[in-house]
Amino acid sequence: MTSKSLRKTIQHINQQEPMRAQVMAAECPSRAVLGHITSRWGVLVLVMLLERTHRFSELRRAVGGVSEKMLAQTLDALAQDGLVLRVAHQVVPPHVEYSLTPLGREAAERLEVLVDWIEDNFPLIREAQQAYTQKAA
Amino acid sequence: MTSKSLRKTIQHINQQEPMRAQVMAAECPSRAVLGHITSRWGVLVLVMLLERTHRFSELRRAVGGVSEKMLAQTLDALAQDGLVLRVAHQVVPPHVEYSLTPLGREAAERLEVLVDWIEDNFPLIREAQQAYTQKAA
Repeated sequence: MTSKSLRKTIQHINQQEPMRAQVMAAECPSRAVLGHITSRWGVLVLVMLLERTHRFSELRRAVGGVSEKMLAQTLDALAQDGLVLRVAHQVVPPHVEYSLTPLGREAAERLEVLVDWIEDNFPLIREAQQAYTQKAA
Repeated sequence: MTSKSLRKTIQHINQQEPMRAQVMAAECPSRAVLGHITSRWGVLVLVMLLERTHRFSELRRAVGGVSEKMLAQTLDALAQDGLVLRVAHQVVPPHVEYSLTPLGREAAERLEVLVDWIEDNFPLIREAQQAYTQKAA
Protein backbone atom coordinates (compact mmCIF):
# COMPACT_ATOMS: atom_id res chain seq x y z
CA MET A 1 0.00 0.00 0.00
CA THR A 2 1.44 3.43 -0.87
CA SER A 3 1.65 5.99 1.90
CA LYS A 4 -1.02 7.99 0.10
CA SER A 5 -3.53 5.13 0.02
CA LEU A 6 -2.65 4.25 3.63
CA ARG A 7 -3.40 7.84 4.65
CA LYS A 8 -6.71 7.62 2.82
CA THR A 9 -7.61 4.38 4.56
CA ILE A 10 -6.87 5.86 8.00
CA GLN A 11 -8.87 8.95 7.13
CA HIS A 12 -11.75 6.75 6.08
CA ILE A 13 -11.66 4.76 9.34
CA ASN A 14 -11.60 7.96 11.41
CA GLN A 15 -14.59 9.35 9.57
CA GLN A 16 -16.71 6.29 10.20
CA GLU A 17 -19.40 6.46 12.82
CA PRO A 18 -18.10 5.22 16.18
CA MET A 19 -19.48 1.79 17.11
CA ARG A 20 -22.83 2.03 18.90
CA ALA A 21 -22.67 1.34 22.64
CA GLN A 22 -23.90 -2.15 23.56
CA VAL A 23 -24.58 -2.87 27.20
CA MET A 24 -24.77 -6.62 26.53
CA ALA A 25 -21.05 -6.61 25.62
CA ALA A 26 -18.90 -7.10 28.73
CA GLU A 27 -16.17 -4.77 27.49
CA CYS A 28 -18.43 -1.88 26.39
CA PRO A 29 -17.81 1.23 28.53
CA SER A 30 -21.57 1.93 28.56
CA ARG A 31 -21.81 -0.86 31.16
CA ALA A 32 -20.23 1.41 33.77
CA VAL A 33 -22.80 4.13 33.05
CA LEU A 34 -25.64 1.59 33.34
CA GLY A 35 -24.05 0.65 36.67
CA HIS A 36 -24.05 4.24 37.97
CA ILE A 37 -27.62 4.95 36.84
CA THR A 38 -29.07 1.70 38.20
CA SER A 39 -26.94 1.52 41.35
CA ARG A 40 -28.76 1.13 44.64
CA TRP A 41 -28.48 4.84 45.45
CA GLY A 42 -28.13 6.16 41.90
CA VAL A 43 -31.75 5.33 41.05
CA LEU A 44 -33.11 6.98 44.18
CA VAL A 45 -30.91 10.11 43.92
CA LEU A 46 -31.82 10.70 40.27
CA VAL A 47 -35.54 10.28 40.98
CA MET A 48 -35.37 12.68 43.97
CA LEU A 49 -33.57 15.31 41.87
CA LEU A 50 -36.33 15.12 39.27
CA GLU A 51 -38.52 16.95 41.79
CA ARG A 52 -36.13 19.85 42.35
CA THR A 53 -32.58 20.93 43.21
CA HIS A 54 -31.48 19.55 46.58
CA ARG A 55 -28.74 20.32 49.06
CA PHE A 56 -26.57 17.40 50.13
CA SER A 57 -28.22 17.24 53.56
CA GLU A 58 -31.70 17.30 52.01
CA LEU A 59 -30.84 14.39 49.73
CA ARG A 60 -29.41 12.50 52.67
CA ARG A 61 -32.72 12.84 54.51
CA ALA A 62 -34.91 12.13 51.46
CA VAL A 63 -33.15 8.93 50.41
CA GLY A 64 -33.80 6.65 53.38
CA GLY A 65 -30.80 4.69 54.63
CA VAL A 66 -28.04 6.24 52.52
CA SER A 67 -24.77 6.98 54.31
CA GLU A 68 -22.87 10.24 53.82
CA LYS A 69 -20.04 8.36 52.11
CA MET A 70 -22.25 6.43 49.68
CA LEU A 71 -24.27 9.55 48.81
CA ALA A 72 -21.06 11.48 48.05
CA GLN A 73 -19.73 8.63 45.89
CA THR A 74 -23.04 8.29 44.03
CA LEU A 75 -23.25 12.03 43.32
CA ASP A 76 -19.61 12.08 42.16
CA ALA A 77 -20.16 9.26 39.66
CA LEU A 78 -23.33 10.91 38.31
CA ALA A 79 -21.56 14.28 38.03
CA GLN A 80 -18.68 12.66 36.11
CA ASP A 81 -21.17 11.15 33.65
CA GLY A 82 -22.67 14.62 33.09
CA LEU A 83 -26.01 13.66 34.65
CA VAL A 84 -25.84 15.72 37.85
CA LEU A 85 -24.60 19.28 38.31
CA ARG A 86 -22.85 20.25 41.54
CA VAL A 87 -22.88 23.94 42.43
CA ALA A 88 -20.97 25.20 45.48
CA HIS A 89 -22.29 28.56 46.66
CA GLN A 90 -19.65 30.82 48.19
CA VAL A 91 -21.67 31.86 51.21
CA VAL A 92 -21.35 31.58 54.98
CA PRO A 93 -22.05 28.84 55.93
CA PRO A 94 -21.03 27.32 52.54
CA HIS A 95 -23.63 25.25 50.80
CA VAL A 96 -23.61 22.86 47.87
CA GLU A 97 -26.56 22.15 45.64
CA TYR A 98 -27.18 19.27 43.27
CA SER A 99 -29.48 19.32 40.26
CA LEU A 100 -30.06 17.34 37.07
CA THR A 101 -28.47 18.33 33.78
CA PRO A 102 -30.76 18.04 30.72
CA LEU A 103 -29.13 14.64 30.07
CA GLY A 104 -29.68 13.59 33.68
CA ARG A 105 -33.32 14.63 33.49
CA GLU A 106 -33.86 12.29 30.55
CA ALA A 107 -32.31 9.37 32.45
CA ALA A 108 -34.22 10.21 35.64
CA GLU A 109 -37.57 10.38 33.83
CA ARG A 110 -37.04 6.83 32.58
CA LEU A 111 -36.07 5.65 36.05
CA GLU A 112 -39.13 7.29 37.56
CA VAL A 113 -41.36 5.27 35.22
CA LEU A 114 -39.66 2.10 36.49
CA VAL A 115 -39.88 3.11 40.16
CA ASP A 116 -43.55 4.06 39.82
CA TRP A 117 -44.22 0.71 38.18
CA ILE A 118 -42.58 -1.15 41.08
CA GLU A 119 -44.53 0.84 43.68
CA ASP A 120 -47.81 0.36 41.79
CA ASN A 121 -47.29 -3.35 41.23
CA PHE A 122 -45.72 -4.21 44.55
CA PRO A 123 -48.90 -5.93 45.85
CA LEU A 124 -48.81 -8.30 42.84
CA ILE A 125 -45.10 -8.99 43.32
CA ARG A 126 -45.78 -9.68 47.02
CA GLU A 127 -48.47 -12.19 46.05
CA ALA A 128 -46.10 -13.88 43.62
CA GLN A 129 -43.42 -14.09 46.33
CA GLN A 130 -45.86 -15.74 48.72
CA ALA A 131 -47.04 -18.22 46.08
CA TYR A 132 -43.42 -19.08 45.29
CA THR A 133 -42.59 -19.71 48.96
CA GLN A 134 -45.68 -21.92 49.41
CA LYS A 135 -44.82 -23.91 46.28
CA ALA A 136 -41.26 -24.43 47.52
CA ALA A 137 -42.40 -25.50 51.02
CA MET B 1 -63.75 0.55 74.70
CA THR B 2 -66.20 -2.38 74.73
CA SER B 3 -65.08 -5.66 73.18
CA LYS B 4 -67.63 -5.08 70.42
CA SER B 5 -66.27 -1.66 69.46
CA LEU B 6 -62.72 -2.99 69.75
CA ARG B 7 -63.62 -5.78 67.32
CA LYS B 8 -65.09 -3.21 64.97
CA THR B 9 -61.92 -1.09 65.12
CA ILE B 10 -59.72 -4.08 64.31
CA GLN B 11 -62.02 -5.04 61.47
CA HIS B 12 -61.78 -1.49 60.13
CA ILE B 13 -57.97 -1.49 60.26
CA ASN B 14 -57.81 -4.83 58.44
CA GLN B 15 -60.11 -3.59 55.70
CA GLN B 16 -58.00 -0.52 54.99
CA GLU B 17 -55.88 -0.42 51.86
CA PRO B 18 -52.36 -1.60 52.59
CA MET B 19 -49.83 1.24 52.65
CA ARG B 20 -48.47 2.00 49.18
CA ALA B 21 -44.92 0.79 48.58
CA GLN B 22 -42.33 3.58 48.81
CA VAL B 23 -38.85 2.85 47.54
CA MET B 24 -37.49 6.00 49.21
CA ALA B 25 -38.22 4.46 52.63
CA ALA B 26 -35.28 2.36 53.85
CA GLU B 27 -37.54 -0.22 55.50
CA CYS B 28 -39.99 -0.70 52.60
CA PRO B 29 -39.77 -4.24 51.18
CA SER B 30 -40.14 -2.83 47.64
CA ARG B 31 -36.48 -1.79 47.95
CA ALA B 32 -35.40 -5.42 47.57
CA VAL B 33 -37.45 -5.77 44.38
CA LEU B 34 -35.93 -2.57 42.99
CA GLY B 35 -32.58 -4.15 43.85
CA HIS B 36 -33.31 -7.36 41.91
CA ILE B 37 -34.70 -5.55 38.86
CA THR B 38 -31.87 -3.01 38.67
CA SER B 39 -29.05 -5.35 39.70
CA ARG B 40 -26.04 -5.56 37.41
CA TRP B 41 -27.28 -8.79 35.79
CA GLY B 42 -31.00 -8.40 36.50
CA VAL B 43 -31.33 -5.53 34.00
CA LEU B 44 -29.54 -7.42 31.24
CA VAL B 45 -31.34 -10.73 31.82
CA LEU B 46 -34.79 -9.10 31.80
CA VAL B 47 -34.00 -7.18 28.60
CA MET B 48 -32.69 -10.34 26.87
CA LEU B 49 -35.82 -12.29 27.83
CA LEU B 50 -37.98 -9.57 26.28
CA GLU B 51 -36.80 -10.89 22.92
CA ARG B 52 -37.80 -14.51 23.52
CA THR B 53 -37.57 -17.51 25.85
CA HIS B 54 -33.96 -18.54 26.50
CA ARG B 55 -32.19 -21.59 27.81
CA PHE B 56 -29.73 -21.06 30.65
CA SER B 57 -26.74 -21.58 28.35
CA GLU B 58 -28.16 -19.14 25.77
CA LEU B 59 -28.58 -16.46 28.41
CA ARG B 60 -25.08 -17.08 29.64
CA ARG B 61 -23.71 -16.44 26.14
CA ALA B 62 -25.98 -13.44 25.42
CA VAL B 63 -25.21 -11.54 28.63
CA GLY B 64 -21.50 -10.82 28.25
CA GLY B 65 -19.37 -11.48 31.32
CA VAL B 66 -21.95 -13.12 33.59
CA SER B 67 -20.77 -16.15 35.57
CA GLU B 68 -22.84 -19.30 35.92
CA LYS B 69 -23.31 -18.64 39.62
CA MET B 70 -24.40 -15.02 39.23
CA LEU B 71 -26.79 -15.89 36.40
CA ALA B 72 -28.40 -18.63 38.50
CA GLN B 73 -28.76 -16.28 41.50
CA THR B 74 -30.21 -13.52 39.32
CA LEU B 75 -32.76 -15.86 37.69
CA ASP B 76 -33.74 -17.24 41.12
CA ALA B 77 -34.42 -13.80 42.57
CA LEU B 78 -36.47 -12.79 39.51
CA ALA B 79 -38.44 -16.06 39.64
CA GLN B 80 -39.20 -15.51 43.33
CA ASP B 81 -40.56 -12.04 42.55
CA GLY B 82 -42.83 -13.57 39.90
CA LEU B 83 -41.06 -11.83 37.02
CA VAL B 84 -39.39 -14.83 35.39
CA LEU B 85 -40.83 -18.30 34.76
CA ARG B 86 -38.53 -21.31 34.95
CA VAL B 87 -39.67 -24.41 33.05
CA ALA B 88 -37.69 -27.66 33.31
CA HIS B 89 -38.43 -29.98 30.38
CA GLN B 90 -38.27 -33.67 31.24
CA VAL B 91 -36.24 -34.72 28.23
CA VAL B 92 -32.87 -36.33 27.59
CA PRO B 93 -30.66 -34.36 27.92
CA PRO B 94 -32.77 -32.29 30.40
CA HIS B 95 -33.20 -28.64 29.55
CA VAL B 96 -34.46 -25.61 31.40
CA GLU B 97 -36.05 -22.58 29.82
CA TYR B 98 -36.60 -19.12 31.19
CA SER B 99 -39.23 -16.65 30.02
CA LEU B 100 -40.93 -13.51 31.28
CA THR B 101 -44.25 -13.60 33.11
CA PRO B 102 -46.74 -10.88 32.12
CA LEU B 103 -45.53 -8.93 35.19
CA GLY B 104 -41.90 -9.46 34.19
CA ARG B 105 -42.64 -8.27 30.67
CA GLU B 106 -43.96 -4.97 32.05
CA ALA B 107 -40.80 -4.45 34.12
CA ALA B 108 -38.52 -5.48 31.24
CA GLU B 109 -40.20 -3.07 28.81
CA ARG B 110 -39.44 -0.20 31.15
CA LEU B 111 -35.84 -1.34 31.54
CA GLU B 112 -35.43 -1.63 27.78
CA VAL B 113 -36.41 2.04 27.42
CA LEU B 114 -33.67 2.94 29.90
CA VAL B 115 -31.04 0.70 28.27
CA ASP B 116 -31.87 2.05 24.80
CA TRP B 117 -31.55 5.58 26.15
CA ILE B 118 -28.08 4.82 27.57
CA GLU B 119 -26.91 3.24 24.30
CA ASP B 120 -28.32 6.12 22.23
CA ASN B 121 -26.87 8.82 24.46
CA PHE B 122 -23.56 7.19 25.25
CA PRO B 123 -21.60 9.53 22.93
CA LEU B 124 -22.97 12.55 24.88
CA ILE B 125 -22.15 10.91 28.20
CA ARG B 126 -18.64 10.17 26.93
CA GLU B 127 -18.20 13.84 25.98
CA ALA B 128 -19.38 14.91 29.43
CA GLN B 129 -16.91 12.48 31.07
CA GLN B 130 -14.03 13.91 29.03
CA ALA B 131 -15.04 17.51 29.83
CA TYR B 132 -15.21 16.62 33.54
CA THR B 133 -11.74 15.04 33.50
CA GLN B 134 -10.26 18.06 31.68
CA LYS B 135 -11.86 20.46 34.17
CA ALA B 136 -10.50 18.47 37.10
CA ALA B 137 -6.97 18.31 35.60
